[in-house]
Amino acid sequence: MRFQSRLRLLTFVLFLTCCAFQLHAADPLPSWNDSAARQNIMAFVKKVTTEGTPDYVPPELRIATFDNDGTLWSEKPMYFQMYFAVDRVKTLAPQHPEWKTQEPFASVLKGDYKTAFAGGEKAVLQLVVATHAGMTTTEFEQIVNKWSETARHPKTGRLFTEMVYQPMLELLAYMRANGFKTFIVSGGGIEFMRPWTNRVYGIPPQQVVGSSIKTKFEMRDSGPVLIRLPEVNFIDDKAGKPIGINSHIGLRPIAAFGNSDGDIQMLEWATGTSGARFALLVHHTDAKREYAYNTGAVQALKDASEKGWTVVNMKDDWKVIYPPLKK
Amino acid sequence: MRFQSRLRLLTFVLFLTCCAFQLHAADPLPSWNDSAARQNIMAFVKKVTTEGTPDYVPPELRIATFDNDGTLWSEKPMYFQMYFAVDRVKTLAPQHPEWKTQEPFASVLKGDYKTAFAGGEKAVLQLVVATHAGMTTTEFEQIVNKWSETARHPKTGRLFTEMVYQPMLELLAYMRANGFKTFIVSGGGIEFMRPWTNRVYGIPPQQVVGSSIKTKFEMRDSGPVLIRLPEVNFIDDKAGKPIGINSHIGLRPIAAFGNSDGDIQMLEWATGTSGARFALLVHHTDAKREYAYNTGAVQALKDASEKGWTVVNMKDDWKVIYPPLKK
Repeated sequence: MRFQSRLRLLTFVLFLTCCAFQLHAADPLPSWNDSAARQNIMAFVKKVTTEGTPDYVPPELRIATFDNDGTLWSEKPMYFQMYFAVDRVKTLAPQHPEWKTQEPFASVLKGDYKTAFAGGEKAVLQLVVATHAGMTTTEFEQIVNKWSETARHPKTGRLFTEMVYQPMLELLAYMRANGFKTFIVSGGGIEFMRPWTNRVYGIPPQQVVGSSIKTKFEMRDSGPVLIRLPEVNFIDDKAGKPIGINSHIGLRPIAAFGNSDGDIQMLEWATGTSGARFALLVHHTDAKREYAYNTGAVQALKDASEKGWTVVNMKDDWKVIYPPLKK
Repeated sequence: MRFQSRLRLLTFVLFLTCCAFQLHAADPLPSWNDSAARQNIMAFVKKVTTEGTPDYVPPELRIATFDNDGTLWSEKPMYFQMYFAVDRVKTLAPQHPEWKTQEPFASVLKGDYKTAFAGGEKAVLQLVVATHAGMTTTEFEQIVNKWSETARHPKTGRLFTEMVYQPMLELLAYMRANGFKTFIVSGGGIEFMRPWTNRVYGIPPQQVVGSSIKTKFEMRDSGPVLIRLPEVNFIDDKAGKPIGINSHIGLRPIAAFGNSDGDIQMLEWATGTSGARFALLVHHTDAKREYAYNTGAVQALKDASEKGWTVVNMKDDWKVIYPPLKK
């Protein structure tokens, strides 16, 4: 009898364990606290995926667009692509002795990024042209790949590709599990992102929209190549985002996710029409676990409150910021 | 006994019918004669989809690009998009009394397309700007949709969207069934194709690459719109095709299908690297069922023979040209 009752107890414990495990496995957004942001997301997804309702959207029209910098990964102390640019400047410096005295390169080589980028857009463009052009697309992909596998964030020591938001990784997977196609629509360089977005976000190259420089087709003895030219082709920011979306996707998103003033037009484009629509802003409120700032997002936050866009309060809404490090 | 033997016969006949049906259902390319073109296609697909072989390509890299005009649908007596343009000129003529005396519009209105297009690229551009710009992207989509559901080919009387090649429809489906993503990469207008490519080819808007004019984002009282501007953005032809592929897809195709000199660079881009690659040209050899011409394809056919690209001889390789008409 004692044996039997123990067996019964054991069975019961096993049963509870299974239940707990199943409950856990059934939560698609485990890193989100059960606050309004999470509830709004899940209510929207349920609404557009429930057949027979007026808000139902067929899978082929379930397009969700995500900004990258500050929305899927961190963007401080400066855009990660700028770390790529300054790392490239350091690598290329031996071939460019003139950079020792020429701005913004001189400041970059001294490690004084503040002075380097004080030149604003012009300085950024000079750095991008010097570091992102002049090679084939294949060569550039290899350069980005190598960088993304080794370059680390100055504050956390993580690889930059480990500075992605765990709650957003869960959100991407959750949207896809519900029949959405997830796209990146970023002001960042399209060919700077594509080499690693599939590995990191599960987003393949053809679903990445970004800024670009022009390319040129050339036949070489070794075969055809595309050369990256020192000339801006498209800036995928602000009013450029709906244009980039229209050009690359050809469908209007029904959900859009951003964090800054550069995302306003994308969120307007996604929501400013009839039918169930969803817009979300990530608000950086967590000085301890990430960064806390409104700079560059003041208008977007104002619009969000006026237009009923969902705002993620990072500090309160997210249980964790970054994914656990792989051992 | 007589009843039983009849039953046995009936069962046997049913069995044979099922076998025949299954055999038929198992042929993915029923409109292709069993000649070299079909054999080359199937050998390539088998090669890249057989795991554990050196030529195996994982599904996410199985990118196949298809030209449209002359490859997926007919292009004679003139590009179908030009019929769209001249139909638009006729519709808009009452608002443009000046067109009565102004070329190329005057000739279009007289039905003299030969004179209208004698002006070459300049005339085409004038017609495109006058008929494809000045409205929102949503309005243009509606205009194209309406046209595609009503406009008919002058020779066959079919809807233009019924002038697609049945063997190519089968090929698209066959490639997709084998894990390929199928893309259109056409010199035609991207927004002229997108409204109907999913319905006709099973190719969704985000997998259509084409030529484009610039657009502008604008906030109106009714909501945000994209305005189509009278300014060329990108010409997706010749050396533009690899550039368009790189911009929209970000992966190099492993198979490419075309029919003219405008496709040479795309076929070079797909094949000019290591690994299993496939290129195919549709050669228009069927004066009776379609059209017979080498014009605009002389160099491509020469390249095909030198580089071992597969050439479809339409007359001999295809059992039918167009799909059966829906009743």
